[in-house]
Amino acid sequence: MKGLMMNYQLTLVHILERSVKLFNDREIVSRVLDGSLYRYTYADFYRRARLLAAALSNFGIKKGDRIGSLMWNHYIHLETYFGVPVSGGVLHTVNARLNPDDIVYIINQAEDRVLIVDNDLLPLLKEIENRLNVEKIIINTFSDISTNNYTSYEQFISYYSSYESYPLIDESDAAVICYSSGTTGLPKGVVYSHRALVLHSLAGALPDVLDVKRKDAVAPIVPMFHANAWGLPFIMTMLGCKQVYPGHHLDAANLLDLFNREKVTLAAGVPTVWINVMEEVEKDKEMYKFPDNFTVVVGGSAPSEDLLNRLMNAGCSIKHAWGMTETTPLATINSSENIIGDVAEKKKYTHLTKQGTPIPFVEIRAVNEDGVITWDGKSMGEIQVRGPWISSGYYRAKTVRWELDEGWLCTGDIATIDSNGSVKLVDRTKDLIKSGGEWISSVELENELMGHGAVKEAAVIAVEDAKWEERPLAVIVLKEGKEATAEELKEYLKPKFVSWWIPDSFVFVEKIPRTSSGKFYKKELRKNIGKYLQ
Amino acid sequence: MKGLMMNYQLTLVHILERSVKLFNDREIVSRVLDGSLYRYTYADFYRRARLLAAALSNFGIKKGDRIGSLMWNHYIHLETYFGVPVSGGVLHTVNARLNPDDIVYIINQAEDRVLIVDNDLLPLLKEIENRLNVEKIIINTFSDISTNNYTSYEQFISYYSSYESYPLIDESDAAVICYSSGTTGLPKGVVYSHRALVLHSLAGALPDVLDVKRKDAVAPIVPMFHANAWGLPFIMTMLGCKQVYPGHHLDAANLLDLFNREKVTLAAGVPTVWINVMEEVEKDKEMYKFPDNFTVVVGGSAPSEDLLNRLMNAGCSIKHAWGMTETTPLATINSSENIIGDVAEKKKYTHLTKQGTPIPFVEIRAVNEDGVITWDGKSMGEIQVRGPWISSGYYRAKTVRWELDEGWLCTGDIATIDSNGSVKLVDRTKDLIKSGGEWISSVELENELMGHGAVKEAAVIAVEDAKWEERPLAVIVLKEGKEATAEELKEYLKPKFVSWWIPDSFVFVEKIPRTSSGKFYKKELRKNIGKYLQ
Repeated sequence: MKGLMMNYQLTLVHILERSVKLFNDREIVSRVLDGSLYRYTYADFYRRARLLAAALSNFGIKKGDRIGSLMWNHYIHLETYFGVPVSGGVLHTVNARLNPDDIVYIINQAEDRVLIVDNDLLPLLKEIENRLNVEKIIINTFSDISTNNYTSYEQFISYYSSYESYPLIDESDAAVICYSSGTTGLPKGVVYSHRALVLHSLAGALPDVLDVKRKDAVAPIVPMFHANAWGLPFIMTMLGCKQVYPGHHLDAANLLDLFNREKVTLAAGVPTVWINVMEEVEKDKEMYKFPDNFTVVVGGSAPSEDLLNRLMNAGCSIKHAWGMTETTPLATINSSENIIGDVAEKKKYTHLTKQGTPIPFVEIRAVNEDGVITWDGKSMGEIQVRGPWISSGYYRAKTVRWELDEGWLCTGDIATIDSNGSVKLVDRTKDLIKSGGEWISSVELENELMGHGAVKEAAVIAVEDAKWEERPLAVIVLKEGKEATAEELKEYLKPKFVSWWIPDSFVFVEKIPRTSSGKFYKKELRKNIGKYLQ
Repeated sequence: MKGLMMNYQLTLVHILERSVKLFNDREIVSRVLDGSLYRYTYADFYRRARLLAAALSNFGIKKGDRIGSLMWNHYIHLETYFGVPVSGGVLHTVNARLNPDDIVYIINQAEDRVLIVDNDLLPLLKEIENRLNVEKIIINTFSDISTNNYTSYEQFISYYSSYESYPLIDESDAAVICYSSGTTGLPKGVVYSHRALVLHSLAGALPDVLDVKRKDAVAPIVPMFHANAWGLPFIMTMLGCKQVYPGHHLDAANLLDLFNREKVTLAAGVPTVWINVMEEVEKDKEMYKFPDNFTVVVGGSAPSEDLLNRLMNAGCSIKHAWGMTETTPLATINSSENIIGDVAEKKKYTHLTKQGTPIPFVEIRAVNEDGVITWDGKSMGEIQVRGPWISSGYYRAKTVRWELDEGWLCTGDIATIDSNGSVKLVDRTKDLIKSGGEWISSVELENELMGHGAVKEAAVIAVEDAKWEERPLAVIVLKEGKEATAEELKEYLKPKFVSWWIPDSFVFVEKIPRTSSGKFYKKELRKNIGKYLQ
């Protein structure tokens, strides 16, 4: 016996149509290229997102075709978040911080037909353009600055006065594709359906999750190419929040100015963002303050107890979230406003370093060699998740069985789970380095270093860093009779990696400890890091 | 191109499993038959709901079979809310206030195989039992009181120690059936799918909707046989709220005692409930108070400005919701905490009499003879809705086309919609008074009359008129010890309405008949109009 309810599809079309009907005069504010604030309304956003859909249809974009974006956080990126999927297209949000080779690879693997690029990323574009298989490049100039023979975004959408009608979209249709910069191998495409984005928006806005209200002013500092800025643009548009985008002006002074000027109530970013902001706040407490009733959403990597303590002492509420590109991304949440169980005041910050409990419709468990662990806060296992916004596989990756265990996604994060269901990450299965919210693959650096004529063995590990949270350190064994200095090895790596991947420190040793199976014993290396640095 | 997300079904199984994993020690409190409070935990609830599922499976209940409940609001009714649907069955919540003939009709039309009945409803059961086609009747005694040859609920679930495993449930499968007590014709069955109940729970708990949090203590006063107590038991169990049920002790003194004793933060009921509670509060302000941070959810029929004013002056926040059995039921919401647009302080209560804006994933429009009305706050039309938890038809009713207009549900409610998208009900299509070709809203007249100091209740109905076709007549119940004449009331109305809206006749009565859901029974009033006019 079936229910007798309307077959109403969960798509972004509903959110876009709702936004103009109910919130047409709400504001969307963006810091643009020159640092000024550009503001317009939901009515403007709605009109232009539909003009983009019209222009894409006219260009010949068909259902399922991919459109790449290489942009920072601002209103035009927001227009693509809706204009592309409601036209039936799939938005591919390209991470502008990847190394150029990877950017070329993912744009070509996704077969993006059109690529929309921020004007300040032209140097990057020039470097890779002749290797891209895209049909059309559109440059977003924010104004009528010359676009050097490219079509400007404003030109592209200017030929249309309206959008006829949406194609028929099923909630299982793809809406967005975002590549996960996995530890080993090439980046892999996570494909979000309309349904997943809608359900994630409903669950993500709940009072016990991010607690987002119409009257909030929300600033996504996390880039819009990282798991859809954690889903916030969809949540905000569904609820009619004031939307506040920082553009690429991510320094602490600019962010604090934006928060105060626009009376932001909730902002989301990785720990590095908040470390920098707190340093600025602590520098001059009169000059730099958080606005009243300010909530910090922190995720992407684990914030330290010290950071949480300082943020709360500065008057912020905390939402500590965990997830990954493959989980759309919200999977668990911990909140200073909703501390669970008997937690004494002085233990509050320790408690907040936990990643919290699964949000509705996400299931978690942790598995080790002995099977599913008990929720005792001590046993460790790899976190596995399932739910309606959890990846079932990667784009055009035939073999993904290693990622799934009987329908559960294996996250690669090692954690404990306490009796309240609160997750605490303790390690990673792989030895990724998280620097400023971005991943650095130790394996790739090691492989490159071991290609140097003087290097016998190289192991790259993470060392704690006050500013970037983690930085790579390379432990090197030289070949007998060969020599190489740290400076030489840095120069050697430079052409192959973006600058921030290059290890800050090089330590030369006789031997790298190995596990019984012959792999580098990185746990041991990290433990002895002080010794190596002497 | 399809998304690559898990095919994870939205079912009540997830909510039940989540509840015990994350909230096992949270409390569920019920006022039982003898007026005492019975309390147990989510762990108890989980265990017993699954024992019920085991007992039903063992009895031979197969997927889609209906199980009737004839019960008030308490933990055992909650157990059936989950135990029946997760076993694959469909819970039929029978309205115990219907007349016995209708109860017999709906139990037989739904083909309930099992019926679970509260002990205090035995007299009703005896009256109808020989006309029921059910296979088994189970009596809920709350204890080991003799059940007069029926199986007791405790016996029924006592033979099992656990539940093996859930059947495969698709989100489109039926979970609950609830008959709509239409004012005309036979009751009609609305069939809720698992998907509709899940999506309604996610949207209903949002901060801008009912704003339900884990730390809330929620008391559904609205009966669990009325559109699933407005979905609250599902919302609470999903979020881990403390659940507080009044049993059948719905008088003001018992409710206020329950609210204070259990530190209730949110309670939901029809205006009649709140009128009675406010009278008690105003009788003795020292003795009767609302707990701190108390939110009143009011719906089912339109609350008067006077009632909203009094509730807010007593310290309550207001959530004014609109919907119907066919809309699961939440469709629009207005909130004292989230007033939209420029509303001056003194206009606040007037604003709150509006039914508010559609919640996410509900679409609204209003239609009259000229087509879809503009959102100008003046044009009137019948409200139509669509969305994933809106009925597409009734159970075993072949012809429902009159209910649907191109995929929109016709609600039978006449309303205006303002430029903010806020709905203001002006009448039922059936209760509108058509005078000289123009519409007069009985509801607006009633609300104004109930703001008069001497008027306790007012119902306005149409009477036939040779010249104008219909004219309004007001039926008035005066407050104890107060007096008012027809002439005084006419004078009182004059400044507020155009002259032809003022009722020609006023009839003073002891009591206005009400429907089983507590609304004015206008059909009955109209039938007896001759009697009143004598």
